[in-house]
Amino acid sequence: MKIGILGYGNLGKGVEYAVKQNSDVELSVIFTRRNPSDLKINSDAKVVNISEIESWKDKIDVLIICGGSATDLPEQTPKYARIFNVVDSFDTHAKIPVHFENVDKAAKETNHLALISCGWDPGLFSLNRMYANAILPEGKDYTFWGKGISQGHSDAIRRIDGVKNAKQYTIPVEKALKAVRNGENPDFTAREMHTRECFVVAEENADKARIEKEIKTMPNYFEPYDTTVHFISEEELQEKHGGIPHGGFVIRTGKTAGDKNHVIEYSLKLDSNPEFTSSVLVAYARAIHRLSKEGQTGCRTVFDIAPKYLSPKSDEELRRTML
Amino acid sequence: MKIGILGYGNLGKGVEYAVKQNSDVELSVIFTRRNPSDLKINSDAKVVNISEIESWKDKIDVLIICGGSATDLPEQTPKYARIFNVVDSFDTHAKIPVHFENVDKAAKETNHLALISCGWDPGLFSLNRMYANAILPEGKDYTFWGKGISQGHSDAIRRIDGVKNAKQYTIPVEKALKAVRNGENPDFTAREMHTRECFVVAEENADKARIEKEIKTMPNYFEPYDTTVHFISEEELQEKHGGIPHGGFVIRTGKTAGDKNHVIEYSLKLDSNPEFTSSVLVAYARAIHRLSKEGQTGCRTVFDIAPKYLSPKSDEELRRTML
Repeated sequence: MKIGILGYGNLGKGVEYAVKQNSDVELSVIFTRRNPSDLKINSDAKVVNISEIESWKDKIDVLIICGGSATDLPEQTPKYARIFNVVDSFDTHAKIPVHFENVDKAAKETNHLALISCGWDPGLFSLNRMYANAILPEGKDYTFWGKGISQGHSDAIRRIDGVKNAKQYTIPVEKALKAVRNGENPDFTAREMHTRECFVVAEENADKARIEKEIKTMPNYFEPYDTTVHFISEEELQEKHGGIPHGGFVIRTGKTAGDKNHVIEYSLKLDSNPEFTSSVLVAYARAIHRLSKEGQTGCRTVFDIAPKYLSPKSDEELRRTML
Repeated sequence: MKIGILGYGNLGKGVEYAVKQNSDVELSVIFTRRNPSDLKINSDAKVVNISEIESWKDKIDVLIICGGSATDLPEQTPKYARIFNVVDSFDTHAKIPVHFENVDKAAKETNHLALISCGWDPGLFSLNRMYANAILPEGKDYTFWGKGISQGHSDAIRRIDGVKNAKQYTIPVEKALKAVRNGENPDFTAREMHTRECFVVAEENADKARIEKEIKTMPNYFEPYDTTVHFISEEELQEKHGGIPHGGFVIRTGKTAGDKNHVIEYSLKLDSNPEFTSSVLVAYARAIHRLSKEGQTGCRTVFDIAPKYLSPKSDEELRRTML
C-alpha cells in the first residue's frame, strides 16, 4: 500500500521511520506547506508543496495527516477526506464528537474512509478503557500520564517573560499508583495523581524567583499540582532533556458479582512519543486501506476497527501464532 | 439478549454472576448433564437436562459453552454451533486451528456465528500480543503468568500416591519482569521466568520426602522449575488457599526506526479466574449476538471483533466518554 504524509514535523518524521519497519507499506509522498527543496528527509519519498495535493488523488491509498489538533486538523482532515482515505491523531478529547461529524460527512459524500483520534491517548489508552469497561461493568477508571514531556506545559513556561527555553515533565505519583493497584478505589485531586517538574533556561539577569513563582501559580497548568522548578543552562537542557519521552497507565479496578476484585492495567513507556504515535498511525493506516477495499466509507475511531486489520499477518497466522 | 449456559461448573457459575452486572443480558437457561433438580443455582434461570437442548433452538440468542478444553469443547462447540450462536473458552493453544475449522464449518452450514478461545489467555492476552506486534514490528514478546492457581499442576500433584489434596501457585520471577521492563531483551529458560509453589495435604503416615521428590522431579510440570513444597493441613488449605486467583503480564519491548526503545505492558490481577473469564465471555456474547444480527456467520476469534461490539454503550457515547 502507498501512503502519503501531510506535515513533516516530529510526527511526520515518525511516520517516515515507521514505514521502514513495515514491508507492505510504501511512503510515496510528503506534502508540506514549506518550500519542498527546503526539506531534508530520511527516505526517497517525493516532497510536494501542499498546493499540488489534489493531483495526487488516486495515487496513494491513505494520507496520514500529521498536523496539530488546535488549528490544523479540524480544517485539514474533513478537507482531505474528500480526496483521500485519511488517518489523523486529533487529540482534543472534548471536540472529538464535532470533529467526527465533520469528517464523517466529508468521507461519506466522496466514498472515502477516515480514522480520527489515533495514537496512544486517544488511541491505545481509549481501547483499553473501553475493553476494561465492557468486561468489568462495575468499577473505577484511572489514567496516569508520564513520566514524560508535556508539550503544552513546556510551551506555557516558554511564554513567561525572561524564559529562554523550558521542558516540563509530567510524573505520576507512585503512592497513588500503588493505592489504585491495591484496589483501594481512591478518589484523587489532580495534585495527588501527578507532579510537574520543570527545567528552565532563564535569560541572563532574569529574575528567577519571579519566574519560578509565575510558573507555580499559573492557573490550570501548574497551580493545581506540586511543581518543582530547576534552572539549568541551555547546554544541559539539550543534553539531558532533549528527548520526547512519554507514557502512562490506564487502570480499571472492578468487582465481579461474586464480590471478587480484579485489576486490569495497561501501560506504555516510550522513549519517543512521536515515533511511537506514528507507529500506531501506520498500523491503523493499513486497517483503513483494507476496510476501504471492503467498501467501507465514513469516519471511524479505534473502537470500530477489528484488531486483525492492523496486522500484516493472515488470519490463519494470527490464530496460530498470537492467540 | 437471552443467553444460555452449557455446564454449571466454576465457569458457568461465573457467567451467571456476570449476567447480573449487564442489564441488557438475560440468563434464560442452564443446560446440564446432571439431574436438573440436583443443581442449586444463583438465579431464576431454567435448569434443563442437556438431552432437551434442541428444543431451545431459537429461544436463546447465544449459548455460552462452559466445558473443559480437553474433551468437552472439541465435541460440544461444533455440535451446538449447528443449533445456536455459541461462545467458548477453548484454551489448548496448539489445537486452536483445528478447532476453528470444525466450528467454522458447522456454523457456516447452519448460518450461525461462533466465537472460540475467548477469556484472558487466550483472549485479552492474545489481543494485547497482537496489537503490540502490529505497532512495534521489531521487538520481543514476553508472557508471564501468575501469581495464580494452575489447575493442571494442582491436579498433577493430587495424582501422586499419598496426596490427599493440593494447590499449586505459578509465580512470575520478579527479577525477570524487571529485566524485561528495562528493555534488556533477555532470553529466558522456563526456570528463569516462573517459580512453582505447592501446598500439599498428605495422607496420614504418607512418606512426605518421597512425595516432595516426586513433585520436584515431575517432567514438564515441575522439573524445569524451581519448586517449593509445603505440607499443610486440609483446614489450612481450605482457609488460606481456597480461592482461584490468577493473572499475569504480556509485555512487548521494541525499537522504532529512530533507535528509540518502547515498552508496552498489559497485566491482570484477578481474585477469581473463573469469574473474570466469564465476564469476558459475556461481553463477547453481546458482540456475537450483534454481529449475528448483522448477518455474519462462521467462526471468529477476538482478533475479528471490533471493540465497540463488546460494549452496551452506543458508538456516540463511546466516543464521548472513552476515547
